[in-house]
Amino acid sequence: MMFNNQNVRISQKATIGKNVRIGDNTVIFDNVVIEDNVTIAHNCIIGEPLNEYYSDPDYENPVTIIGANSLIRSHAILYAGNIFGKHVSTGHRITLRENNTIGDHTVIGTGTDIQGNVIIGNYCRIYSSVAMAPFSKIGDYVFIFAFVVLTNDPYPPSEDLKGCTISDYTQVAAHSTILPGVKVGSNCLIGANSVVNHHIDDYSFVMGNPAKLIMDIRKYVMLGKGRLYPWMYRFSRGMPWENIGYENWMNKKSE
Amino acid sequence: MMFNNQNVRISQKATIGKNVRIGDNTVIFDNVVIEDNVTIAHNCIIGEPLNEYYSDPDYENPVTIIGANSLIRSHAILYAGNIFGKHVSTGHRITLRENNTIGDHTVIGTGTDIQGNVIIGNYCRIYSSVAMAPFSKIGDYVFIFAFVVLTNDPYPPSEDLKGCTISDYTQVAAHSTILPGVKVGSNCLIGANSVVNHHIDDYSFVMGNPAKLIMDIRKYVMLGKGRLYPWMYRFSRGMPWENIGYENWMNKKSE
Amino acid sequence: MMFNNQNVRISQKATIGKNVRIGDNTVIFDNVVIEDNVTIAHNCIIGEPLNEYYSDPDYENPVTIIGANSLIRSHAILYAGNIFGKHVSTGHRITLRENNTIGDHTVIGTGTDIQGNVIIGNYCRIYSSVAMAPFSKIGDYVFIFAFVVLTNDPYPPSEDLKGCTISDYTQVAAHSTILPGVKVGSNCLIGANSVVNHHIDDYSFVMGNPAKLIMDIRKYVMLGKGRLYPWMYRFSRGMPWENIGYENWMNKKSE
Repeated sequence: MMFNNQNVRISQKATIGKNVRIGDNTVIFDNVVIEDNVTIAHNCIIGEPLNEYYSDPDYENPVTIIGANSLIRSHAILYAGNIFGKHVSTGHRITLRENNTIGDHTVIGTGTDIQGNVIIGNYCRIYSSVAMAPFSKIGDYVFIFAFVVLTNDPYPPSEDLKGCTISDYTQVAAHSTILPGVKVGSNCLIGANSVVNHHIDDYSFVMGNPAKLIMDIRKYVMLGKGRLYPWMYRFSRGMPWENIGYENWMNKKSE
Repeated sequence: MMFNNQNVRISQKATIGKNVRIGDNTVIFDNVVIEDNVTIAHNCIIGEPLNEYYSDPDYENPVTIIGANSLIRSHAILYAGNIFGKHVSTGHRITLRENNTIGDHTVIGTGTDIQGNVIIGNYCRIYSSVAMAPFSKIGDYVFIFAFVVLTNDPYPPSEDLKGCTISDYTQVAAHSTILPGVKVGSNCLIGANSVVNHHIDDYSFVMGNPAKLIMDIRKYVMLGKGRLYPWMYRFSRGMPWENIGYENWMNKKSE
Repeated sequence: MMFNNQNVRISQKATIGKNVRIGDNTVIFDNVVIEDNVTIAHNCIIGEPLNEYYSDPDYENPVTIIGANSLIRSHAILYAGNIFGKHVSTGHRITLRENNTIGDHTVIGTGTDIQGNVIIGNYCRIYSSVAMAPFSKIGDYVFIFAFVVLTNDPYPPSEDLKGCTISDYTQVAAHSTILPGVKVGSNCLIGANSVVNHHIDDYSFVMGNPAKLIMDIRKYVMLGKGRLYPWMYRFSRGMPWENIGYENWMNKKSE
């Protein structure tokens, strides 16, 4: 019942790969490249023109790429200039302003709002309703939970915008705010509803408003479970080490 | 001007009751049952197929039920397997993943995101932009305000998901986070922006990060208003005791 | 490729100015007035009828006005009775319930939810995913960042709703909650994730849960930058003093 080709509009300047499915009422603008085996659901806008489109008669839409095997769920709005890796998967109603780069196998949750010039690595899980200000940088294997905000304006309103950085393997729990320009190290856990106002070292477990160091995350032990972090030794679903374990995968990589 | 039957698609395997109105561009998938006197506004997706739909040629869509007299406002996305009671009313752009159960007379606000396998009782008011992780359980007459998050992962990322429970008559104010597996008792008030990290006894007024007990809510008195909680003696709009008062209604029930 | 007039429906009781562009699948209801040079993008609903529309056969839709030169981005839902000034600009998927007044040159971000009977002044910047309860009042030149909530119910659930007031030139950082009836003065800075539970004097910098006074904002000095607030002397993009400076503009105004 889906994919009836009802009311689908595809620019003649778009490039569509093999086995691509496009939902009803979806619009694909100029200079969008959709690679093979991509599914784009209903009511999406892919390659939405930038503001100049409304005023500049010579406007040329920047290139947008949706990597092979990606799934974009319904009502997504992707501005022109977004570059998606392969196997990216999204929830519904995501909004991505221009010029973001999204890595392979990354998941972006329903309602998430990525405000342009953001870089997200591979195998990240960005959950529902996350807001990322321009110039945010996210490493690989990073999980960011609902209603987290990455800010960028140190003394609003200003033109002195400084994006946040979240490094590899870090977990940012729901409702946390990362203040402008803050760098969070790798393998950290940021507790729910924290306000992070200073750089955070690798392997830190912090929480609170303002966020304070609770412990080195490697000392976080649970009865009957042992050491919980780094988490890669106990969690693998959807990760590249899914069938072989993190240690084997790392060994293989370094061979 | 509404209900022009423009671009409406209804599966032949759906069951539509009497006096049902369906807005333009709305799609009703297989095995959806829409009971009498239901209104579904524009641009809704009811019974969205689960992931297996994309890969399994024998895929059968789970049953979805929209109870009699319900109103689903525009741009809702309801996955297959949702069971709505009667007189349910929703805001715009709600997202419900599969297999939630929503009680009679419950209201779900604009932009709320219910992530599957959630149970919500009768006469609840879930306001805008609430996020409920899978396995959340909500009693009857519960009010949950904007941007509240019910989480479920105690040490992310893990497979050891534990939903929260919010018991009857409890109020959860805006921006609060309920940590995984926490049980909040009945008749509680959770102050705005709280982080609830432990079980909360019935009749507790808590707030803060982490949430601390302020007082027994029955002692919360306001000059000229008297005792404010339990709230059912002073508020009845939309509740089953609306015209007779809570005490009479309780007496009648127990007859 | 936009503005194909596909599936656009405009009530015969609507008034459309000159040089108006209306996106595909957009619906304009009765008694909507769209002034000259307005752009309304795809999939918008302008003048959505109120609840009585569903039950009252004599229902008359309140007047809705979209002021000249405004831009409403896609998937907006504006109920009847909204009055927009000139040069208003919005993100995607905004939801405005009935009877809000939005001033000239104000910007409303993606996903913001304004719940009716709200007044917003001129030249405000309301960012993404802000929630404003009914009876909120916002002055001129106010900036409100992502996930801020303006509440209105002092002891939920009640019928004793009291909106918040945010005065001219004030900045409310991300994730803050303003409690019911609170008046925030002019030229304040509310730090990220604050809970404001009492009136705030002009020129206050507050933060925390509950929000505490950090300093008189006029004493906030940064090395190499000097005094940061009031911000109008160092920031002018999109403001009426953009090309002449705040001081000159003020002098001109008072001439």
